[in-house]
Amino acid sequence: MIPIKINDPAGVTFAKGFKAAGIVAGLKKSGNKDLTLIYTETPAAVAGTFTQNKVAAAPVHVSKLTVKNGTAHAVISNAGCANACTGDEGLKNAHIMGEVTAKTLGCKPEEVIVGSTGVIGVQLPMDTITAGIPKVAAELSPTGSADASAAILTTDTKSKTATATFTVGGKEVHIGGIAKGSGMIRPNMATMLCYITTDLAITPALLQKALSAAVNLSFNMISVDGDMSTNDMCIVLANGLAGNDIIDTENEDFETVKEVLKNITIELAKQIAADGEGAGKFITINIHNAVDFNDAKTVGMAVANSPLVKTAFFGEDPNWGRIICAVGYSGANMVPEKTTLSIGGIPIFTKGMGTDYDEAALRAIMAEHDIVVDIDLNQGTESATVWTCDLTYGYVKINGEYHT
Amino acid sequence: MIPIKINDPAGVTFAKGFKAAGIVAGLKKSGNKDLTLIYTETPAAVAGTFTQNKVAAAPVHVSKLTVKNGTAHAVISNAGCANACTGDEGLKNAHIMGEVTAKTLGCKPEEVIVGSTGVIGVQLPMDTITAGIPKVAAELSPTGSADASAAILTTDTKSKTATATFTVGGKEVHIGGIAKGSGMIRPNMATMLCYITTDLAITPALLQKALSAAVNLSFNMISVDGDMSTNDMCIVLANGLAGNDIIDTENEDFETVKEVLKNITIELAKQIAADGEGAGKFITINIHNAVDFNDAKTVGMAVANSPLVKTAFFGEDPNWGRIICAVGYSGANMVPEKTTLSIGGIPIFTKGMGTDYDEAALRAIMAEHDIVVDIDLNQGTESATVWTCDLTYGYVKINGEYHT
Repeated sequence: MIPIKINDPAGVTFAKGFKAAGIVAGLKKSGNKDLTLIYTETPAAVAGTFTQNKVAAAPVHVSKLTVKNGTAHAVISNAGCANACTGDEGLKNAHIMGEVTAKTLGCKPEEVIVGSTGVIGVQLPMDTITAGIPKVAAELSPTGSADASAAILTTDTKSKTATATFTVGGKEVHIGGIAKGSGMIRPNMATMLCYITTDLAITPALLQKALSAAVNLSFNMISVDGDMSTNDMCIVLANGLAGNDIIDTENEDFETVKEVLKNITIELAKQIAADGEGAGKFITINIHNAVDFNDAKTVGMAVANSPLVKTAFFGEDPNWGRIICAVGYSGANMVPEKTTLSIGGIPIFTKGMGTDYDEAALRAIMAEHDIVVDIDLNQGTESATVWTCDLTYGYVKINGEYHT
Repeated sequence: MIPIKINDPAGVTFAKGFKAAGIVAGLKKSGNKDLTLIYTETPAAVAGTFTQNKVAAAPVHVSKLTVKNGTAHAVISNAGCANACTGDEGLKNAHIMGEVTAKTLGCKPEEVIVGSTGVIGVQLPMDTITAGIPKVAAELSPTGSADASAAILTTDTKSKTATATFTVGGKEVHIGGIAKGSGMIRPNMATMLCYITTDLAITPALLQKALSAAVNLSFNMISVDGDMSTNDMCIVLANGLAGNDIIDTENEDFETVKEVLKNITIELAKQIAADGEGAGKFITINIHNAVDFNDAKTVGMAVANSPLVKTAFFGEDPNWGRIICAVGYSGANMVPEKTTLSIGGIPIFTKGMGTDYDEAALRAIMAEHDIVVDIDLNQGTESATVWTCDLTYGYVKINGEYHT
């Protein structure tokens, strides 16, 4: 397996030919960085996955056109304002954001990905945006990923990055990504914002295929609060500077790319789940032997989204009844008597009832930051893993005190 | 419309021929009342709806047999232990609970409804239960509903009751119910525990039909935390002492009964939503002009279960973006540009974007305890109402500090 390096500040500038920058444009009240630009002079194949929310934000509509175009040079992305529920004016503003970026960089508007995140229902302050774009372009640098990564964050407490190096047809290929997301996280076919760059040579169609497969096993498998955002998007740019023969069939190299992309996105997704709003714990839920993947995911998501399960983890109480209860109402094929449940490797539910487990050992596991839950349905052969966090006073504080 | 009286201590003893009692049997650590008995010497037609959770508790299995039997004399119900996830031993214990009650009262075991609520995964202390049953039977009284109502509560802060008087074929009929439920509340075809008694004469089949219709519009329309309990049940006993000609066809009288039962269960369901764990606000969500009832309910439940929406209400912030976001990801047919949203009668979202509403007026509405949200999808003609509460520090405290 190709190793994935997390917390690598090289992020989206790890691959050859990519520059990035992040600046304070003036959108965030906090005065933190809020405008990100990622650029490759060499045109890149582009692929993307987007929110399934019917109330999709304006930038999602614009970026879908760029993905359809198949080639891109840049990503322009702001935090502090989601440009969602902003009507025709919002759509016009998202297009202008792409156009000003294209003009500044000397490419076409349909070669620019536009992303936004922040408060819903407020128009973008376009003077701030259009003044900020030339400034952030002036800062573009092959070591600018850390700033770019910081400028896409909202309630996140830390940057999320992952990089990897692998070989395709004898050529060394680099790939790296940055992501943001902390609340309103239950992506479906996309996540909050994730930008990945690589110097791989690959066709847009196959890049899209690999990305979609990766996202289904990564960003679509996490949940902080069960709320699917209006602005989710995950974008990959592949500029081909690694010099490999272009991947245009589903050969062995394509399988390698799929595997790397899957593992990069999983590492980024896990960082999002671990940095969920107010989170104190990171919980991995493995579902084994389900009838199909969908059932496995359904069970994992039911457990991950149960406020009772999440508060039990916050309270460090091994309240397995709440977990089994969620499995039972998930709708997936299950029979209580055939289901087994372990926490931290300790079997605690089997044959329809609790086991005689070592309470002290289990309490020690519940006191850890990282906790693994294994649920075996014994119904089939498919498995899935879902990642989530606990529900704490911090989540209520962040979202109860957040004022529009 | 027949008026429903809430907070009526007469509850399940309002109808002729019903007695009730609630005592301290010793199941609750708090020392509060924990064993309830409801009894009618005259045999009663019985109907029930039960949890759809595949991990149904032992008493649910036993009570389903009693409902199948069609006639019942009694309800025995304990709090403090759910008798769920307790395997064969738990099932045997639930049967014993019914048998001891039957023997004490001089009826058959298949004429006794058995209910339990409390912690999951712990066996019933049968010595306490079997010692408690004769004691609670000795306390049976035509004014015992208040005690009975208190003894089914767990984390509830108050009793839930509703009564009504109506006329069938010139005869005065009485109906009254008690309910409990505060956490693990997103019933589906049933709720936590609800016992309703009436002196109406009706066949078990039609009583079941009226109850199922009522529950679909009441207990199935509330959510505290999206968690469906293992123990949910709603039971009606009808002993016929009102002296009306027995309702055995779907005539006009049957329509009256359906209407009363619907309104009784709605009033009880609303009391459960309002007393949700940690709740500070009671929120009514009306969905208008959906394609069908299912879509309307789906939208209402998506909004009611969104932690972001619930914390916004806690923070008294009119964050309509979170509401529209939940409508968008609900999966129901909707088009942002056709959807309108009002809070407390003030239109705040229309034509795909926010309106120029009076902020001070809206903030005053958000500061109220009871808040009404209206969402018009403009997609069809069907409507639905869902009731919920906010998500507060109190919920996290109750469920984070609750230790098994």
